[in-house]
Amino acid sequence: MFPQDSAHLTSCTLKTMGNSPAGRISVGRISDGRVGVGVLGCGHVGSAFLDLLAQQQSEIAERTGLFLAVQQVAVRSVSRDREVPLDDGVLTTDAMSVVNDPATDVVVELIGGIEPARELVMSALRQHKPVITANKELLATYGAELYAAAEDAGVDLLFEAAVGGGIPVVRLLRASLVAEPILRVMGIVNGTTNYILSQMTERGVSYHDALADAQSLGFAERDPSADVEGFDAAAKASIIATITFGAWVGAGSVYREGISGITAADIADARQLGYAIKLLAVAERVGEVDNKPELAVRVHPAMVPVDHPLASVRDSFNAMFVEGMAVGDLMFYGRGAGGRPTASAVLGDLVDAANNLRRDTFSSLGVLSEAGVSCIDDLESEYYINMEVTDRPGVLAAVAGVFGSHRVSIRSMEQAGLGDQARLVFITHRASERDVQATLGDLRELDAVRSVPAFLRVVG
Amino acid sequence: MFPQDSAHLTSCTLKTMGNSPAGRISVGRISDGRVGVGVLGCGHVGSAFLDLLAQQQSEIAERTGLFLAVQQVAVRSVSRDREVPLDDGVLTTDAMSVVNDPATDVVVELIGGIEPARELVMSALRQHKPVITANKELLATYGAELYAAAEDAGVDLLFEAAVGGGIPVVRLLRASLVAEPILRVMGIVNGTTNYILSQMTERGVSYHDALADAQSLGFAERDPSADVEGFDAAAKASIIATITFGAWVGAGSVYREGISGITAADIADARQLGYAIKLLAVAERVGEVDNKPELAVRVHPAMVPVDHPLASVRDSFNAMFVEGMAVGDLMFYGRGAGGRPTASAVLGDLVDAANNLRRDTFSSLGVLSEAGVSCIDDLESEYYINMEVTDRPGVLAAVAGVFGSHRVSIRSMEQAGLGDQARLVFITHRASERDVQATLGDLRELDAVRSVPAFLRVVG
Repeated sequence: MFPQDSAHLTSCTLKTMGNSPAGRISVGRISDGRVGVGVLGCGHVGSAFLDLLAQQQSEIAERTGLFLAVQQVAVRSVSRDREVPLDDGVLTTDAMSVVNDPATDVVVELIGGIEPARELVMSALRQHKPVITANKELLATYGAELYAAAEDAGVDLLFEAAVGGGIPVVRLLRASLVAEPILRVMGIVNGTTNYILSQMTERGVSYHDALADAQSLGFAERDPSADVEGFDAAAKASIIATITFGAWVGAGSVYREGISGITAADIADARQLGYAIKLLAVAERVGEVDNKPELAVRVHPAMVPVDHPLASVRDSFNAMFVEGMAVGDLMFYGRGAGGRPTASAVLGDLVDAANNLRRDTFSSLGVLSEAGVSCIDDLESEYYINMEVTDRPGVLAAVAGVFGSHRVSIRSMEQAGLGDQARLVFITHRASERDVQATLGDLRELDAVRSVPAFLRVVG
Repeated sequence: MFPQDSAHLTSCTLKTMGNSPAGRISVGRISDGRVGVGVLGCGHVGSAFLDLLAQQQSEIAERTGLFLAVQQVAVRSVSRDREVPLDDGVLTTDAMSVVNDPATDVVVELIGGIEPARELVMSALRQHKPVITANKELLATYGAELYAAAEDAGVDLLFEAAVGGGIPVVRLLRASLVAEPILRVMGIVNGTTNYILSQMTERGVSYHDALADAQSLGFAERDPSADVEGFDAAAKASIIATITFGAWVGAGSVYREGISGITAADIADARQLGYAIKLLAVAERVGEVDNKPELAVRVHPAMVPVDHPLASVRDSFNAMFVEGMAVGDLMFYGRGAGGRPTASAVLGDLVDAANNLRRDTFSSLGVLSEAGVSCIDDLESEYYINMEVTDRPGVLAAVAGVFGSHRVSIRSMEQAGLGDQARLVFITHRASERDVQATLGDLRELDAVRSVPAFLRVVG
């Protein structure tokens, strides 16, 4: 399975191998098993991918008989100095010419964003060329159209790198569990927010300090809203829901809350109650309406019991927790981002697509059904609710009365005095989001309630 | 992806569905996509498999176009009352006739043990019939012959259920990571021992009490040696090493130590030092000798840092920690045993094999290379060593002198007094097993050392 020299392929030697003649990606034609690869984009992931392919090219050829030859690489500017091992003349600024080139058998799209990625991918699929993409935004927005185009053309549209970086979760959800009805998938799918929440938990720092720390380490963007407001996680939730349940769910249908409202006090409360706070992407089947599956798909911070496997996923790691009907609970854990893990996922897809091309077959998602997506108001969950109240007789009775009037049953309550104020922390029994929201609305009307009550959903 | 009524398929209704007419496994012939399944064995896993197939048969047909029809089921005795949903005449005691039946397209072997399983599987493969098996003992003993027979016949030999129960780790190691050189796999692959060690850690009970508890719950056999002495884990380590590195490693080449020597004091020491004790199956590539990969494959209890993902795998759960060159660290977690998780893995394999049969292809392991398996003496690791000594001046100097004379460097030491005795606990820097064993040998010769020193390997 390994070539003779692979024992020497340590991570220390890898960086330089790409520039050595032995590691150079060959673009020469071979008659048997040669697959022409057109690469769109050569940024962080693109260069890691080209580097990894350079290292693995001969080994893949030995193990599979497939020679993955990079035909052209579309870049924004050919003049920029690159450390990527490419022959002269491979770089071009004309991405569409890469797609259209008859020598391009497979297209690897690593540009990101909607346009021109969408037009390029659609064009490739219409030309019956398989596409590998890491573009979660594109799939979460135009997935229905793209999956249908791939199905019509009978070619692969593979996207392992779009969710969970190097964790092979797309492959598993698409194929491995075909005999296993999946009830629910819960994922920690955004490394930046998991890093921030881990720092808040382990070092007791505030949200803003943890964010600044993540920014200084390059884990978070200067404008962090795509991560911290849950947009990135919502795009991934859309993809997860679509492949798990075989029904199209666009990012616009995903309920979304970010972590910017989480305070150090929430984290401390959660710890004391035996929970960790995690930003979760959840996709679950909740029922059926008019013969269509009804799904609930949402992204929000949640209280996860400390002994749940998701609670121990720290730093910028990702994990996907899958609840199957027969198999029970599974979890897949690994690096959710980074050039090399993502490149590994892209290369794995490329090998699959090339193999399928040779066998004249493809991985079908089937015809996606329409799904109903339930409203967040219909969610049933336990809730964590905290508020600051004036510490005087009768306040707890008034607060408890509001819960009772909306049929929200309290499982536990903790009270901590703060001078003439008290902090009340409640965990409810299972209740509907609608009733909890109505409770919160009424609580805000109480004179004794001094802060707007905050709440988090509790994962059982 | 889901049939109309699957929303009602909760775990509560599943048990009875198998006996309802709707859930009955049909053995009628259909002209298109019908795959005749011969099942060998109908014990715990066999009946769970038949039950799951009965539930999923129509859904699999809808999603894949494959109708998996149970042709015959070989059992030890047809008279035993069974709750399995089978038509009359499907049961037989003649297992070889099931294999030979022209209507049997795929064989599912769930008998276990070496014979007659080996003869039946070989016979099926020679008849170009794909085989699904959950039989780790068979694969770890006669795998070389069986994989070669499957390769020669050009048919599937699939065994997801043999390692990690319902966790799709075999599939991942075989296929997903084809573009990813794997450096090391470390697994918690035996649920019984993980349950015992978890009980010792969390409840502070002795090994014997934890074992008795596991036996009373049915997690451990009356003769627990296959589990607690590491034989089961060694068989799985053999399979993991073979598929990960593409080189045949039989169970006989796997170094093996069990957990029966682990004491409550070891667990307490480990905790205090920031480690959990886990029984690990480890397969890693350590180098190359005469153009053959050199592997280290071993099963032993190990000290795992508490913040390592494997440390949080509790109860009877299994997990596989995979270190890839580009992808970094991955972990796959789930139920490693039990009828339904195992049945889910078998059914997933059956769907794959049936799909491959229709496409006239198969999952090849390739030609297995020969591997050198390195001796445990050549292991380099950190070590935990403890001993009881007479508490008198000069003892620590004598003990330290023995370490030094074998070039074993001490990273940390803790001493606890016990009257005229002291307990010394050492963690070494990285050292060779050979040197550590020599150190232990010399320590035993010291007058002041009152107990035979015990040691555990520390995972970094």
